[in-house]
Formats: sequence, C-alpha cells, structure tokens
Amino acid sequence: MKHFRQELWFNTPHRRDYLNITPQVEELVAKSGIRNGLCLVNAMHITASVYINDAEPGLLQDYDAWLQRLAPFNASSDVASGGYRHNATGEDNADAHLKRQVMGREVVVAITDGQLDFGPWEQIYYAEFDGRRRKRVLVKIIGE
Amino acid sequence: MKHFRQELWFNTPHRRDYLNITPQVEELVAKSGIRNGLCLVNAMHITASVYINDAEPGLLQDYDAWLQRLAPFNASSDVASGGYRHNATGEDNADAHLKRQVMGREVVVAITDGQLDFGPWEQIYYAEFDGRRRKRVLVKIIGE
Amino acid sequence: MKHFRQELWFNTPHRRDYLNITPQVEELVAKSGIRNGLCLVNAMHITASVYINDAEPGLLQDYDAWLQRLAPFNASSDVASGGYRHNATGEDNADAHLKRQVMGREVVVAITDGQLDFGPWEQIYYAEFDGRRRKRVLVKIIGE
Repeated sequence: MKHFRQELWFNTPHRRDYLNITPQVEELVAKSGIRNGLCLVNAMHITASVYINDAEPGLLQDYDAWLQRLAPFNASSDVASGGYRHNATGEDNADAHLKRQVMGREVVVAITDGQLDFGPWEQIYYAEFDGRRRKRVLVKIIGE
Repeated sequence: MKHFRQELWFNTPHRRDYLNITPQVEELVAKSGIRNGLCLVNAMHITASVYINDAEPGLLQDYDAWLQRLAPFNASSDVASGGYRHNATGEDNADAHLKRQVMGREVVVAITDGQLDFGPWEQIYYAEFDGRRRKRVLVKIIGE
Repeated sequence: MKHFRQELWFNTPHRRDYLNITPQVEELVAKSGIRNGLCLVNAMHITASVYINDAEPGLLQDYDAWLQRLAPFNASSDVASGGYRHNATGEDNADAHLKRQVMGREVVVAITDGQLDFGPWEQIYYAEFDGRRRKRVLVKIIGE
C-alpha cells in the first residue's frame, strides 16, 4: 500500500467564497503515483466545507442564498434577536459552523487508473464560510 | 491490497425516488472477494444522493416532504418568486442540487469478514432528485 | 495492509446529547498500530450522527436549537399538525432520522504518522438524537 499527503492553502477575499479545486487535486493524484485507491479531501478548519457539485456560477449563488436562509449570518450572541450562543466567545462566525454541516467536511473519491473516478459533472469545491485568512485543505490518498 | 470497481445504473420513473440498493452493494462486496477494507458508494451525478438510513416507507415520505420544505422545486430562474439562478441555464433542477447536499453524495462503509459492517437498521439508499433518465452510482472497494 | 475494528458504546442521559469522542478514537488509532491510512468513524444507528466540529459549549446549544428549527421534534404522525408519517409505526423519533442527515452519519479521517491528521480545532463528536438507550459507533482503520 502506498500513501500520499499534501495540504492546499487558501486565503479567500470575502467572508464566503466557493473555489473549484479540482485541478489542484488532480495534480496531487498524479504526483502520488497511486493508480487505484481512495482520495480523501477535507477542510482542516471547522468553518469551511469540501463538497462535490456543479461548476456553474448561478448555482454557487443559489447555494450561498440558500445557506443564508438556513443559517443566516448574525454576529450577535443574543439568541432572541437571531444571534448565536457561540458568538459570546467573541467570535462572529457561528453561522459558518452551521453552514459547513449542511455542505459537509469532506469528500472521498475513488482513484481508478490514476484518475479521479468521476461522473460527467463532478467537481470538487472548497466552500469558505469565514474567510479572509489563511486556511487549508488536506488531501490524503491511499492505494497502490 | 485489492481493489474493485463497478457501476450501478438506474432510471427512476419519477423526478424524485428513493431506492434501497443494499442488496446490489452486498452482491458487489461478495464479488470483490475483499474481506476487510472500505467500501465507497457514491452518486456519480450531482442531483442525486447516496445515504444510509431506514427502509421504512413513511420515513421516505417524510424525507421527501422535508426536502421540499428546505429546498422547494421551482423550475423558474426568477429569484424574487422563489426560483433559482441555476435554472437560467435552461435547466429546471436547481432544487435537486440543493437537496443532494442535505442528503450527501456518498457513504463509506467498513467491510469486515467479507460483509458490510452495519448496525441493525442501516440500509443504503439511492435518492434521485432529477430522475426519469439513466444515471449511475459508483461502488469502489479497497482492502484485502 | 493492516486493518482494525472496534465499537464504542454510549447510553446518553437525554434524548439529544453531543459527546466529544476524540480521546476514545485517538486511543484506538494508537491501539491499531497503523501509521498511515484512513480511519472511518460512523454511527451504527440511524438516529445519531458522527461529525467533526468545535468543542465549544455555546456552539453545541446552537446546533441543537438550529436542528430543532430545521426538523422539530413531534411525536405525532399527524402531518397536518407538524407530525411525521414515520411515527405511525409507533415510534416517536422521525425528527431524529432527519436531524442525523443534516449532521451526517460518518467521518473519514486521515492517519498520518500514527495520529489523527487534524487541523487546529477539529474534534470528533457523537450526536445523539434519540438517546437514553445503548447505542454504538464503529471505528474501522485501514493502512499500514
């Protein structure tokens, strides 16, 4: 069994951003030399997601609007006015911890014949919900 | 290390359907000859989910009604009237891309002694949110 | 390739509870002797989740309040009054099957140099949505 590990670093310009990281992951799969196995890609921070879906700009806006409806940004810790208890710690990112649960922490992708084994439209995204600082994603591949 | 790969194809009669695919996955685990390892089962399309939960018809109806509340079907691209920007591409399935994020893309199941290592009620479902056409699921197993 | 399997058992005092199980999983990683690979941690029951996020008491309360908004507890099977069809089986836990889909069934964590390969704040939680009885989590590790 072979194993490979590398981090990808991001510093997004906005609080929330959606980055297609498929090319970077493909490069690491090639670099690993692993032909058949599993590739784990996970956010190493708890206010960001890694997910697989469409590279379509309208959909990215739909996701963002929808996540704001399901878990609205609110910097306050006053629950009665829509705030979150977590923000009593002095942070303002409770909503980001919730949004990340909807979109997920990680994806596991099959590696077949040295490639990400994808359907026609699958793309790997890094979804940032509390950006404007350096954060990272882990890529771990095992196989042979 | 051994590895095994096979696709399962579906063409559901309705836009949304929930199929118990546990027997098909069990067959592939047996066919793989792998006794201990990990089994990845993922939708290869981005408007469908693979998830693990109960084989109970009432619950399937509850899931469907709940997902319609969280991300209602709306073929329009007029956001003001509840539509989705993604549908400006000419598609009508933006809601399916959202529903799939709630239910997830994939499951990873332990293989122990040649079996899916499941608790008493775990069943693998294929959830289709934009059906009535041929779509597929990937099963990739690694282990020994 | 090496493989390791062990169950963790819980019996939470309340219907809903959130337990940090990182120390138990770390112990099993050490016990496995596996230095590089993948560690799957999944709920073996379908009304509980395993997820990774912050060990911050305010956030746990936020999660609980938020999940109650997204999928409120309602013991009834009368859909018109906010109940769930699943509860017509005689159970009262349909909401738990929904909450678990938001928070997820499983996490897959990289093992690097014999450790959980985590970012600074990642902690593994067991989220119980229908507790007060013995339930379990599976830890399966493969690697070398």
